[in-house]
Amino acid sequence: MASYDLEHPAIDEIELTDVLFALSDPARLEIVREVSAGPLSMAECGATNPALPKSTKSHLMKVLREAGVVRNEPDGRGRRLTLRREELDERFPGLLDSILR
Amino acid sequence: MASYDLEHPAIDEIELTDVLFALSDPARLEIVREVSAGPLSMAECGATNPALPKSTKSHLMKVLREAGVVRNEPDGRGRRLTLRREELDERFPGLLDSILR
Repeated sequence: MASYDLEHPAIDEIELTDVLFALSDPARLEIVREVSAGPLSMAECGATNPALPKSTKSHLMKVLREAGVVRNEPDGRGRRLTLRREELDERFPGLLDSILR
Repeated sequence: MASYDLEHPAIDEIELTDVLFALSDPARLEIVREVSAGPLSMAECGATNPALPKSTKSHLMKVLREAGVVRNEPDGRGRRLTLRREELDERFPGLLDSILR
């Protein structure tokens, strides 16, 4: 695995409590709202909060990725963030709908 | 307010991220599952985890109460825990259904 290929949990490894924790922080929830409209580059993501330090943003992304909420994949020279919407809807029906409404 | 009357947030003060945080811990989520079947005395609650120290249990209850998830009210010589189901369903439609299913 190349160093830019980050690890993502498989759908059946995703824990409900980890997803709830990932979404329990206002800055992380805002990122999830942003990517719920479609994939975003890392550069675009967090645009509603431009004062966010890069290291803080990296940590928010790591929590969201490790909880199974987003995919963070290489895309050209940058990275692309995608909400794992279909997988999460299958594993936890109605959860994202109720949180992102 | 008597010392045994604990504070509870009003329904319109309840924050989604606080509710998600309260439910993001396996021990707290288990308590919520227990009270989702009906009010329980403090003594009955947490019965699925009898090894839980009393101080830990008190703290779990405090987080759930302060987030607006449960009511913790005096009941005779003990205390009674109630899930704020109707209020939460009104404020965050579908959320508890998706988490407790």
